[in-house]
Amino acid sequence: MSFNTFGHIFRVTTWGESHGPALGATVDGCPPGVPVTEEALQHWLDLRKPGQNKFTTQRREPDAVEILSGVFEGHSTGHPIQLMIRNTDQRSKDYGDIAEKFRPGHADITYWQKYGIRDYRGGGRSSARETAARVAAGGVARAALAKLVPDLRITGYMVQMGPHGIDRARFNWDEIDRNPFWSPDARAAADWAEYLDSLRKSGDSVGAVIEVTARGVPAGLGAPVYGKLDTDLAAAMMSINAVKGVEIGEGMAAAALTGSANADEITIGPDGPAYGTNHAGGILGGISTGQDVVVRFAVKPTSSILTPRKTITKSGEQTEIVTKGRHDPCVGIRAVPVAEAMAACVILDHVLWHRGHVGENQGRIG
Amino acid sequence: MSFNTFGHIFRVTTWGESHGPALGATVDGCPPGVPVTEEALQHWLDLRKPGQNKFTTQRREPDAVEILSGVFEGHSTGHPIQLMIRNTDQRSKDYGDIAEKFRPGHADITYWQKYGIRDYRGGGRSSARETAARVAAGGVARAALAKLVPDLRITGYMVQMGPHGIDRARFNWDEIDRNPFWSPDARAAADWAEYLDSLRKSGDSVGAVIEVTARGVPAGLGAPVYGKLDTDLAAAMMSINAVKGVEIGEGMAAAALTGSANADEITIGPDGPAYGTNHAGGILGGISTGQDVVVRFAVKPTSSILTPRKTITKSGEQTEIVTKGRHDPCVGIRAVPVAEAMAACVILDHVLWHRGHVGENQGRIG
Amino acid sequence: MSFNTFGHIFRVTTWGESHGPALGATVDGCPPGVPVTEEALQHWLDLRKPGQNKFTTQRREPDAVEILSGVFEGHSTGHPIQLMIRNTDQRSKDYGDIAEKFRPGHADITYWQKYGIRDYRGGGRSSARETAARVAAGGVARAALAKLVPDLRITGYMVQMGPHGIDRARFNWDEIDRNPFWSPDARAAADWAEYLDSLRKSGDSVGAVIEVTARGVPAGLGAPVYGKLDTDLAAAMMSINAVKGVEIGEGMAAAALTGSANADEITIGPDGPAYGTNHAGGILGGISTGQDVVVRFAVKPTSSILTPRKTITKSGEQTEIVTKGRHDPCVGIRAVPVAEAMAACVILDHVLWHRGHVGENQGRIG
Amino acid sequence: MSFNTFGHIFRVTTWGESHGPALGATVDGCPPGVPVTEEALQHWLDLRKPGQNKFTTQRREPDAVEILSGVFEGHSTGHPIQLMIRNTDQRSKDYGDIAEKFRPGHADITYWQKYGIRDYRGGGRSSARETAARVAAGGVARAALAKLVPDLRITGYMVQMGPHGIDRARFNWDEIDRNPFWSPDARAAADWAEYLDSLRKSGDSVGAVIEVTARGVPAGLGAPVYGKLDTDLAAAMMSINAVKGVEIGEGMAAAALTGSANADEITIGPDGPAYGTNHAGGILGGISTGQDVVVRFAVKPTSSILTPRKTITKSGEQTEIVTKGRHDPCVGIRAVPVAEAMAACVILDHVLWHRGHVGENQGRIG
Repeated sequence: MSFNTFGHIFRVTTWGESHGPALGATVDGCPPGVPVTEEALQHWLDLRKPGQNKFTTQRREPDAVEILSGVFEGHSTGHPIQLMIRNTDQRSKDYGDIAEKFRPGHADITYWQKYGIRDYRGGGRSSARETAARVAAGGVARAALAKLVPDLRITGYMVQMGPHGIDRARFNWDEIDRNPFWSPDARAAADWAEYLDSLRKSGDSVGAVIEVTARGVPAGLGAPVYGKLDTDLAAAMMSINAVKGVEIGEGMAAAALTGSANADEITIGPDGPAYGTNHAGGILGGISTGQDVVVRFAVKPTSSILTPRKTITKSGEQTEIVTKGRHDPCVGIRAVPVAEAMAACVILDHVLWHRGHVGENQGRIG
Repeated sequence: MSFNTFGHIFRVTTWGESHGPALGATVDGCPPGVPVTEEALQHWLDLRKPGQNKFTTQRREPDAVEILSGVFEGHSTGHPIQLMIRNTDQRSKDYGDIAEKFRPGHADITYWQKYGIRDYRGGGRSSARETAARVAAGGVARAALAKLVPDLRITGYMVQMGPHGIDRARFNWDEIDRNPFWSPDARAAADWAEYLDSLRKSGDSVGAVIEVTARGVPAGLGAPVYGKLDTDLAAAMMSINAVKGVEIGEGMAAAALTGSANADEITIGPDGPAYGTNHAGGILGGISTGQDVVVRFAVKPTSSILTPRKTITKSGEQTEIVTKGRHDPCVGIRAVPVAEAMAACVILDHVLWHRGHVGENQGRIG
Repeated sequence: MSFNTFGHIFRVTTWGESHGPALGATVDGCPPGVPVTEEALQHWLDLRKPGQNKFTTQRREPDAVEILSGVFEGHSTGHPIQLMIRNTDQRSKDYGDIAEKFRPGHADITYWQKYGIRDYRGGGRSSARETAARVAAGGVARAALAKLVPDLRITGYMVQMGPHGIDRARFNWDEIDRNPFWSPDARAAADWAEYLDSLRKSGDSVGAVIEVTARGVPAGLGAPVYGKLDTDLAAAMMSINAVKGVEIGEGMAAAALTGSANADEITIGPDGPAYGTNHAGGILGGISTGQDVVVRFAVKPTSSILTPRKTITKSGEQTEIVTKGRHDPCVGIRAVPVAEAMAACVILDHVLWHRGHVGENQGRIG
Repeated sequence: MSFNTFGHIFRVTTWGESHGPALGATVDGCPPGVPVTEEALQHWLDLRKPGQNKFTTQRREPDAVEILSGVFEGHSTGHPIQLMIRNTDQRSKDYGDIAEKFRPGHADITYWQKYGIRDYRGGGRSSARETAARVAAGGVARAALAKLVPDLRITGYMVQMGPHGIDRARFNWDEIDRNPFWSPDARAAADWAEYLDSLRKSGDSVGAVIEVTARGVPAGLGAPVYGKLDTDLAAAMMSINAVKGVEIGEGMAAAALTGSANADEITIGPDGPAYGTNHAGGILGGISTGQDVVVRFAVKPTSSILTPRKTITKSGEQTEIVTKGRHDPCVGIRAVPVAEAMAACVILDHVLWHRGHVGENQGRIG
């Protein structure tokens, strides 16, 4: 990973700012012969699109993706796939106040210090709009995975909003698409709607925890010791805006367990090794076990809020700031499709990397 | 990061297995003219060395580092620095039982599946012995940082063992070196000693949470959006053996906060911006703010325990395993110097990368 | 370098095919604060533009470059600069015959074998149209170099067409822009015009040798032993379509020299070391000496010719081919601005890399 | 490629100086299960070893390679293979004069300017001793290729010494191993012996041209447009000490040809496409055609000669230099095994890269 590129063989470079003419992703390393269409990519972008309900920013962007290269007669050619999304709703007058003031908790100040650039129209490169490009690239990754690992299913969902978590006993895969929060727990979704509505009205915001589960990941993916599958997943999730923590399987809670409690016992099943539990989150020594790969991350609350906060100006004067504009009260919601896309990119990358380095898994059991 | 190399400009490649003749690190990209001596590197290795007290593995390794290249008359030349550590205590008879059986929670099985290699002498490349090479490389990074960022201090410590956390009110920087657990809380250290002793006697193990704080990090380090400082720190920590979660600043707890509670208000201080709180862990938008950089991670309990666990053999037969041998009841303890070393490598890498890409910070405040 | 990206810190990824909707370059790693405008980039593209005289392809493309990201108020932001060039004249009917037949000497056949893609509309990704993106990226590199190394001048020119070389005694820097061949020798240019005209009429094509000289390159650039300045220049030039050989300084002729003849004697001048000759082409041990950096390469003749050649079809049948269409009789002509652009990218990359790794040159003379 | 690493998937990092304790190569990305032994690697090192006849340096080094990691029970594990070669004959008194003076044509001066390091004992990192590490790494690459592409044969040989070329009509593969110059032309070898002997006695040196042919390269290797097979071969060869020019197939001479003369006509043979000629050197559009891959490069004469040359000292004084010591009158001789090793590394890298990205060739003919 470097600057604006991630991936080893499947390499995604995103580009573009929140208020420029366009943004997109240069996707290099997709195998040839993968069916890729604008319609298929649009499906994933539509899931992330802002303004779909009252819980996300009211900025209206069609987020229509154009394929400019790398696809011929509906299939990838093996060459860079350029995905472009025009910005259309660049209304920037709401941001006027932030041209001179820094928003506490926002990248305004560090971007200014490092680059000497203050894009008064909005977040510029630090804006979460950049994640639209990730979702588009993730669509390409999913298409390649559909061909190479047909049984793979990657699903993201929210497991906590503010202090309110889901009840795992009510976990229902089918519920995830039925509520605006991608909650697998219908009752939690109802509670969150009420909670978020009141927060939104008060001009405040809140954090969330997102989980992504990849089912059907073959055993053997991951390249220790610095290209481990969990290392790359952690980097991918941590690179998403506002993420402050990443967990694999048991995550931070693993610290509190004893070895006897944490060990996922192994039995022999009809298709090879089977595991009684999945504390490991499907990864041992940085390599997938064949169990579900489970990654989880925390998104902090949006820093753009109506509550006045102390801050300073570019010229070093003490002041206060209130951020109006069209912001998400819980950015975690829209992080769900982004996280799915990142997981798809990482897994495809490791499928290709493994195929190059090792070919096929070398060790048989039984 | 790829395979066994991490870093962008300061690039560290580790090599070696637990029971081979030697292990080490090939360190490329160190600036010329940095004072580097075996003595200085040995200091850091001695801190990590096993067998120093009853709470770590009784394997006895001098872990003596030899500099084979890249240093001339006590200073780095700008060329690769080869650091070699001979393995001496390769007693492997204790491991006999694991030649055929897989240890639950251990990388045995995934290494076998992927590579078709079963090093019956021990963990091979997946062993935590690999981290000795990281500590040696970290020593080089510290030497370069001492020249380039003299005020920087990187300190790791344990904040939780099993379910028992420290009391932040008793946090004392000076205490960290005084107890075998790198605890900043003397009372917690005493409690942990008792707790761990009883665990060790029962043949069980336990997890831990480690925190690393870097004080004196200049503002401006980090290369969004995929070379963010927090992204690289997360990847670095997640690549350490047995790590299951990584947090920056508030970490997973950020999910439960509102925007108004989470915002680190900014005031103007004598040396520029000052912050009332540090929920952000010193990083905004992937770039350092000048505050303390705080990263934290969970280490799972060692999977090598005396409690019998269900497992299978290479030939696919159901069996049980008990792992004898010289294992750490809490591997988190020895992860502390490793984490410091990783943090040093990442920060130096970003100092050099920033210097190349941006030169000096471009934006002034005030 | 990997797939479609080159460069270490200044990283250019080109994308796009000859007959797709657009092509371009994703330029990452440009320092912030560099003046970048579409007008300035267009200047360089216009120099490469086809259809400007009878000696280049009659395909008419405005090659108008659009900056889609990474520039704010006329200056680079430090983030990816997306440069897009729309394809407009995609007349493809002339290519009809090549949908089934492979052109001898052309990448048709290897692209088909590797990727299973036969873009019957034209060369696809293998077309020299891709080099328009390089020229645009080179314009960004030049802008950054103008700020960082103001005295640098990078000039490309043709020194041989077919068997006819220039006379170095008539070398005139000012002549280069005055003839359609970028020849520094006016008489050679006149001869070439006549020669090429007759070739063009006979439907044949011819090769050429191009030289690029960079004057004002500071001493110290280059990162031995695999990131040497000459290594990176060689790779950059060899990556251009139809290039079959690359030389630094004396080049292949160095083989015939004795050590006493080849040594560039060193004297002490007013500004430090001075050299009597420049057999080395400004590079010793992979590092610039401060002399002119001289790189030279051979371009083979276009494979698209009117002379009938034996070939086969996709279905494996023996046949003959004659390539009609709008092709350059000497592609070397349009390679000149491309080579300048590549040299600019490589030199900027090494300026930034050196600044990051070493800071400033460490050794003084005198 | 960056700093001291080359390759994309098969990644080789060399380390070590001419007068340090050791040098070697860290080889990462070798597939698991490849037979690798010290004996097999030693075979290749012995071919390069100095002091074997009067035409190479009289420095006596056993160049004994030790495998420190990455091999278990005679097979690669998929983890880094550390190859170490101890320096034993570090006699440095002969070099005394060069501690203060710079040798014209040598990297002394640029290393000093860039790094501020003057290793008075010898060439340090710029010494051709570094190439021993390449040969060792190449031995690993050959072992992997023997498994993956059994019919591949990579052969290097000298085709020109000073102004004296071989006669292609006398080319004999079997002759190459029978003379000290790796000449495929026995008569040329005899002439060179006489010529070089007289040069050596006069204290002068001379350049050479080396060619490497890889027979049995499968079609489809190479990753356009910046990871082309010829691009990577050119970079690999140009990175070898003293190389000033690189050619593929027809090379620089391609400039003088017409398109009708240069086109390699295609016919259909029993195993697919067949080519009447091989001007292309087995590569079209950066991808192998299945023909012999032919790369050629020029090595300049050694700069360490007995003829006095003007130079300066570190303190900037004008002086003269005569380089005594044990130097090769024609370093090209020992470059032959190095070039073979580099070619092996590049081809293996592309075999693995192709396998990862594309899997198998996608397009069939016939």
